Amino acid sequence: MTEHVDLLIHSAGQLCLVPPHDGPQRGAALGDLGLIADGALAVADGRVVAAGPSAALRARFRATQTIDAAGRCVLPGFVDPHTHLPWQGDRAAEFEQRLAGATYMEIMAAGGGIMSTVRQTRRATVAELVEANRPRLARMLRHGTTSAEAKTGYGLDTAAELKQLDAIMALGDSQPVELTPTFLPAHAVPEEYRGDTEGYVRYLLEDTLPAGAAWMRARGIVLFCDVFCEDGAFDLDQTRRILEAATALGYRLKVHADEFVGLGGTKLAVELGAVSADHLVRTPEADIIALGRGDTVAVGLPGTPFGLAHHDYTPAKAILAAGGALALATDLNPGTTWCESMPMVIALACRYMGLTQAQAVVAATLNAAWAIGRGHDVGSLTPGFQADAIILGVADYRQLGYRYGTNLVETVIKRGQVVV
Amino acid sequence: MTEHVDLLIHSAGQLCLVPPHDGPQRGAALGDLGLIADGALAVADGRVVAAGPSAALRARFRATQTIDAAGRCVLPGFVDPHTHLPWQGDRAAEFEQRLAGATYMEIMAAGGGIMSTVRQTRRATVAELVEANRPRLARMLRHGTTSAEAKTGYGLDTAAELKQLDAIMALGDSQPVELTPTFLPAHAVPEEYRGDTEGYVRYLLEDTLPAGAAWMRARGIVLFCDVFCEDGAFDLDQTRRILEAATALGYRLKVHADEFVGLGGTKLAVELGAVSADHLVRTPEADIIALGRGDTVAVGLPGTPFGLAHHDYTPAKAILAAGGALALATDLNPGTTWCESMPMVIALACRYMGLTQAQAVVAATLNAAWAIGRGHDVGSLTPGFQADAIILGVADYRQLGYRYGTNLVETVIKRGQVVV
Ligand SMILES: [Zn+2]
Ligand SMILES: [Zn+2]
Repeated sequence: MTEHVDLLIHSAGQLCLVPPHDGPQRGAALGDLGLIADGALAVADGRVVAAGPSAALRARFRATQTIDAAGRCVLPGFVDPHTHLPWQGDRAAEFEQRLAGATYMEIMAAGGGIMSTVRQTRRATVAELVEANRPRLARMLRHGTTSAEAKTGYGLDTAAELKQLDAIMALGDSQPVELTPTFLPAHAVPEEYRGDTEGYVRYLLEDTLPAGAAWMRARGIVLFCDVFCEDGAFDLDQTRRILEAATALGYRLKVHADEFVGLGGTKLAVELGAVSADHLVRTPEADIIALGRGDTVAVGLPGTPFGLAHHDYTPAKAILAAGGALALATDLNPGTTWCESMPMVIALACRYMGLTQAQAVVAATLNAAWAIGRGHDVGSLTPGFQADAIILGVADYRQLGYRYGTNLVETVIKRGQVVV
Repeated sequence: MTEHVDLLIHSAGQLCLVPPHDGPQRGAALGDLGLIADGALAVADGRVVAAGPSAALRARFRATQTIDAAGRCVLPGFVDPHTHLPWQGDRAAEFEQRLAGATYMEIMAAGGGIMSTVRQTRRATVAELVEANRPRLARMLRHGTTSAEAKTGYGLDTAAELKQLDAIMALGDSQPVELTPTFLPAHAVPEEYRGDTEGYVRYLLEDTLPAGAAWMRARGIVLFCDVFCEDGAFDLDQTRRILEAATALGYRLKVHADEFVGLGGTKLAVELGAVSADHLVRTPEADIIALGRGDTVAVGLPGTPFGLAHHDYTPAKAILAAGGALALATDLNPGTTWCESMPMVIALACRYMGLTQAQAVVAATLNAAWAIGRGHDVGSLTPGFQADAIILGVADYRQLGYRYGTNLVETVIKRGQVVV
């Protein structure tokens, strides 16, 4: 008796299930791919119904669509848990000025820096934001990203931040990459509040955060609220006040911590039960210990130091030694790292964070899903998970990381549908 | 009166001619793109016949094929002047072992390292080498490389080295990327001569180099002869003897110098009139001065330190300050850097060699052509040059380098034909 399914992928040189470990894969256990040689995957109604040896699944299932993955490697689609989509414009000229030796102040004086992106994003309509950011999502998808987080933070006033949220929703509806929205009005202090960070924090607490909460209640979804806890942005006390207010308003939490200076943002994230703490380059030892004890996922963003040509990266080995859960993301943004490719992030993580390819793959799939609160649903090809999968044009997952700068992803499947 | 041409590309947001400076662009003059806004390019018989403002060329020419490049940037095709194509197999497992902490000796004991590539390449037939390496060339082409150098050096005996030359010729005939062959039997000391480098040098001088010379005479072409001048490979005296013998046999010269230790290989390359000296990470000051005075092109290979996660790169600014001619290449090989993409190399060069995007583009086109003795013919879109061009999917060349890890090349033209 054969059962009918929508899709059967069979004969994969390698099928990597990336099984959950009753949650993300933590500490020394990171890197369990659940690898099946000559593997097959059966999909019905957009979900994985079975995974195992090809012979067994081919005997058990008849499928509407069949994919022969001989000489290929099948993996869960990548989850990119930290992007700054959507934004308007680019800063290629500013990058050139920096290379030609311009200082930060000279770039600001020439109208550059984050505020140039804020000005352009504020001027854009939702439709313009959708048009500008769809190609970026298409590029993410071609490189295997099937789910991603998308942040506001280039509006920096209530109306423009809500407009970015609307753009994220419209973008999520208009192409296959599934988007998880994050509210980040505490990304930087806007020009109107220059020199008055406290004034901007008051405005956030009194106006912007409540408006975002009303926005999410109206749509029946839960937003992440994120804060850029850093010298020159929001200090630890401001970060705490914003996050506590966000919790009271029903948001879940994320924190940008320790990118340039370790202020204690990671420890605070763990204390407040944030779903993730991201960047973590200058993370103090005590904060690393806290990650090992809490449920907050540490998100490494190796594209950012790479983009800036800095030498220090997230201390992955220390985080794993402490028992932490580590994920990877692009940090896709126009200022420090414009790269849509999770395979490129894996290549960076192997070289500069010392991860093996297997560890990096789990950090970019299952653990990345946990970093956006989707760990029960995506990031694994274990039966029951959403059928988001990629097929590499090569037989061995270890070609990821080893090779870099080109795209090894040949086929992308979202909810059981071939979309690339 | 309109003239007829085969191809007219018009309305390019930017057309970058990359004009020769009576040779490569040297020193502080590096970075002259010859940029024309709203530019057009006319091509006949595979060569550029005119380049200039769109209005003027559209009035002057009728074309069999027309490409509207509005919102696009047109550049010369990239020239990759240093690759180790063709080889057989991969070393993804060895990369994993290294990340997991295996030492060089443990990897060797497990059958890894360059000798594993040599063993596989020796066993392969020409047809097998063509089959394995055509996809790599296709990937180079998709990322905009229209001409490349290809080296032997995984044969390490006369017959296997000549077989690699045959494979290079067959590969050049079977796809659009034009290949310039280099003979590199002095890449490493093969296992048969372990501990007897002098014995291998004698074998090269008596057997392999004369056989390569006969091979090239029979085909009416001139090969480059290259030597890996490095601790653990060939010392300065051995390098000199090999290169002097090669000159006497009619080869042109290249040198791998200063990748890990500065032995004087660069100064020797200049002294012997080598067309290029490549790697140049640990290059002594005197050798940098020599580059400024001679005609040898310095080829930076930033993929190699990146691939190895080393922090030191070719000191481009010092080479330019000395007046040297600088080019860029991938060093594509299975041991240290498997990346086919010249745009990725440009992104690395901007970050780690401090080049502006304009400098990197010239180093990857015109100057790279000079590094393989093709500077009169390719690497520029000045009238008279071969019509090898790329069209980026973006309007501004400065997106190269700024963005990384994905492919901005939309269309590739080789000798006037659209091939991608
Ligand atoms: Zn961020
Ligand atoms: Zn080389």
